[in-house]
Amino acid sequence: MWDSVDARARDRERKREAVILTAARAFRQRGYHNTSLDDIARELSVTKPTVYHYVANKEQLLFECFRTGLGLIMAGFEEVCSSAGSARERLAYVMTRYAEALTSDFGWCMVQAENQDLSPAMSQKVKQLKSKIDQGIRRLLQEGIADGSIRPCDTKITAFALAGAMNWIAYWYKSGDSLTADEIARRFMDLFELGLQPR
Amino acid sequence: MWDSVDARARDRERKREAVILTAARAFRQRGYHNTSLDDIARELSVTKPTVYHYVANKEQLLFECFRTGLGLIMAGFEEVCSSAGSARERLAYVMTRYAEALTSDFGWCMVQAENQDLSPAMSQKVKQLKSKIDQGIRRLLQEGIADGSIRPCDTKITAFALAGAMNWIAYWYKSGDSLTADEIARRFMDLFELGLQPR
Repeated sequence: MWDSVDARARDRERKREAVILTAARAFRQRGYHNTSLDDIARELSVTKPTVYHYVANKEQLLFECFRTGLGLIMAGFEEVCSSAGSARERLAYVMTRYAEALTSDFGWCMVQAENQDLSPAMSQKVKQLKSKIDQGIRRLLQEGIADGSIRPCDTKITAFALAGAMNWIAYWYKSGDSLTADEIARRFMDLFELGLQPR
Repeated sequence: MWDSVDARARDRERKREAVILTAARAFRQRGYHNTSLDDIARELSVTKPTVYHYVANKEQLLFECFRTGLGLIMAGFEEVCSSAGSARERLAYVMTRYAEALTSDFGWCMVQAENQDLSPAMSQKVKQLKSKIDQGIRRLLQEGIADGSIRPCDTKITAFALAGAMNWIAYWYKSGDSLTADEIARRFMDLFELGLQPR
């Protein structure tokens, strides 16, 4: 009996993920305001009430897409938190996960969610999650300054520069681009770690 | 008689600039779709036909705001084109002008114009102007690699990283921020030129 409850929970989770992924792709392709929950339901070959079973409204669906994308970066922070590497090495790892997130189907929602006339409550939730990423980058920069792997710098402005370069990927990256997320991240870190000036 | 023609032309240009600046501020504060030409006319204490005297429609007004912002960066490229400095120094100067443009009233329009469901023709014009900035940055990077002031790098990806960090300023900068555009640019160039890794 417990097995079947587990199976149902897994099934529900799988379906929920399919709804979110389908929405992320639709928002990215057609824009948030040009996509309806009817469109999402049609693409999944389910009824609209089925979609409402997973999210209360379209805004919440956008938020779930946003949260899924940011979750990929948060996972990066968690993976390195017990790593033995220097803070600069840990930052480089997180930036690779960051690039992967931005080049994923969720990239568009990650940078565009805030531009969609969200309700004040939802806008606040988006800002809170973004702030966690920002705080995580600043913390790694501070740890790097402390362990000597990072030159002393203005951690707030440096974190903005790193996140800005990363977030902008969503504006220029096309799926099928000749570079993988990993290669983009490596070139970005080449700039961020070594700088333009010859060493 | 010619004097008065000149004076009229100057007057017309001044009024046109006032229309564009007022629109840029309104779009930034309330969003493009929440701002009407009526609002702009009211804020300028002129009639709507007066606004139509300068722009054909709201989309063109957004484009003029976009073009004015990008013009500030283009002016930076022109100012350094006969400079004796290394390409890296010229790039640093252009980046300072870039930061000034992004922190100006036109910053919002510069990064948000493309997100506003523009007509295909207008979208094309926006892309062409953006491409000029991108090409200008890549050219300075190539010149820097050639004159030895910049480490060999992937100029396309590096230009995207620099522009992304810059463009993102429009998302976090608040007028009245404790840092001036010049100070932000200096901290960004500290990262871009020297890198995070201690030298």
